[in-house]
Amino acid sequence: MPTEFQFLENLRQKYSLTRIGDDCAVLPKDSKTDLVITTDLLVEDIDFRLEWSKPEFIGHKSLAVSLSDVAAMGAKPVWSMVSIGVPESIWKTDFVDKFYEGYMRLAKKFNVELIGGDVSKTPDKIVIDSIAAGEVKKGKAVLRSGARVGDLIYVTNQLGGAAAGLSILENGVRYDDSVKIWQKNLLLKQLQPLPKIHTAFELANKNLLTAMIDLSDGLSSDLAHICNASKVGAKIYADKIPFHGNLKAIAQTFDEKLNYALNGGEDFELLFTVNPKKKFPHKKAYEKRGFTHIGEITANEGMIKLITNKKSQILEPKGFQHF
Amino acid sequence: MPTEFQFLENLRQKYSLTRIGDDCAVLPKDSKTDLVITTDLLVEDIDFRLEWSKPEFIGHKSLAVSLSDVAAMGAKPVWSMVSIGVPESIWKTDFVDKFYEGYMRLAKKFNVELIGGDVSKTPDKIVIDSIAAGEVKKGKAVLRSGARVGDLIYVTNQLGGAAAGLSILENGVRYDDSVKIWQKNLLLKQLQPLPKIHTAFELANKNLLTAMIDLSDGLSSDLAHICNASKVGAKIYADKIPFHGNLKAIAQTFDEKLNYALNGGEDFELLFTVNPKKKFPHKKAYEKRGFTHIGEITANEGMIKLITNKKSQILEPKGFQHF
Repeated sequence: MPTEFQFLENLRQKYSLTRIGDDCAVLPKDSKTDLVITTDLLVEDIDFRLEWSKPEFIGHKSLAVSLSDVAAMGAKPVWSMVSIGVPESIWKTDFVDKFYEGYMRLAKKFNVELIGGDVSKTPDKIVIDSIAAGEVKKGKAVLRSGARVGDLIYVTNQLGGAAAGLSILENGVRYDDSVKIWQKNLLLKQLQPLPKIHTAFELANKNLLTAMIDLSDGLSSDLAHICNASKVGAKIYADKIPFHGNLKAIAQTFDEKLNYALNGGEDFELLFTVNPKKKFPHKKAYEKRGFTHIGEITANEGMIKLITNKKSQILEPKGFQHF
Repeated sequence: MPTEFQFLENLRQKYSLTRIGDDCAVLPKDSKTDLVITTDLLVEDIDFRLEWSKPEFIGHKSLAVSLSDVAAMGAKPVWSMVSIGVPESIWKTDFVDKFYEGYMRLAKKFNVELIGGDVSKTPDKIVIDSIAAGEVKKGKAVLRSGARVGDLIYVTNQLGGAAAGLSILENGVRYDDSVKIWQKNLLLKQLQPLPKIHTAFELANKNLLTAMIDLSDGLSSDLAHICNASKVGAKIYADKIPFHGNLKAIAQTFDEKLNYALNGGEDFELLFTVNPKKKFPHKKAYEKRGFTHIGEITANEGMIKLITNKKSQILEPKGFQHF
């Protein structure tokens, strides 16, 4: 069986679908602007669980995952649509109202206009399809395919928090008044992630970036997506990867923390590459704002190396995939 | 509990969502063009059944329902996206390949570019979200809200075929080599509907139309949508409604045929209104092409009357709704 990534690549080739394969499709809008657009399907018991979350969080996250894709193109989100299918039993509750409350609160925060959608019935599980679109200066969308040998690799903020949040949910912790601060931090990183819209837009507008992706599948997988699209390799330094501050509460060893940060996914931080000849201005100021240089792009096509204690090992993409 | 239409109307008011409530949302594209966009969620065992259809038909219909919404705005379809979630057991079959074959065949027919989508896993049922966009001259999208008192009401082709197709599926008939011609006609109308894209685009470009909707929920419901949006009423003549030619094979009485045509849904024909003062050119030629004048718009806001044998009765919207 093909993986979902192989499947999409086959589809792209079979039908010559040239706009597929990035965080968003890029379409011409007018003489100065391109439209970027993405869609994300979220399914109950695969992508979220009712007993682990709240309807408002599910609404929030449905929009957040798509806005994060728009951000990863360096675009400004403009409008969105959402289709939701629920079973009769859920329709009778306040789930859908609360879902839209969470959705609309995030939409308002980023001035995103909800322009359409669909409501449908399902036999038993909730399904949500989230569509978001943004605008970017013509030809300036930041693609996955622009990374070049020697480029510096950066991530925003800290990694592994969302995966650690998932882990404590799996271990029975629930988001309620009784949780400790560190648990709340990890749970909110998993249940109510904030897309890095302003950061991405600002970075893209400084023309510094050669490639960008949002960290949804996990660093190891998402860096592989950039390397595959750019036909390059990469090396990253384990001791430079910024771990979420609360990882230490559940991960005893460095390797455990590293695993959350590399393979956990859903942090919705940004992974981007910068041409070192273009001066990254105010290096210190940028680092203060939470950008961390974690490695470099190499000529070793398709190969990602993880440097630990001066030893080098091959990093396989182990992030999330459905199939 | 609110119906789905009430729910959407509440949502529209609560969050001031001004672009919601037509077949498509209308957005400015450039100085000469508007973009229209729609999304439709299709769920296994609610909107389709695997044992009643074929993967190619499901792919075709997924795109067709959204293209029909684009057509109903008088727009030319341009691009589409599709999200599909399937259980592991279906992923292992050729379902998804065949689904895309049907989808892409229809896309090619109307020069629609598939620009993106998502693939996901579900616990057990297939879900599909279909997104389609089209272009229309700025300010010229044909809305549901433009019908005025005295306008003539028309439909394209014949009605009731898709509902009759559903009926024979429910009675155990399957699309295979053994079906009779009349059964095949009805089954294909249900399983592989053809959106009326060229007709809608041509009509809209002649500036004849005051309002238009595609017949997806059923004539009684879809006419109610036009009347509600336009704040008018309507009267239609039962004996003018064009029945699908094969209805007679399963419907014995006039009332049975009328029920299929009024309340069946999924014909994906067009329902439109025309200002009688604007000369409907070549009336005979248009009728030959399958446009039938079935009634008029009245001042009786929210009230639709069905005239049968010179008696008049109130026509309640009885078309399909999920909730």
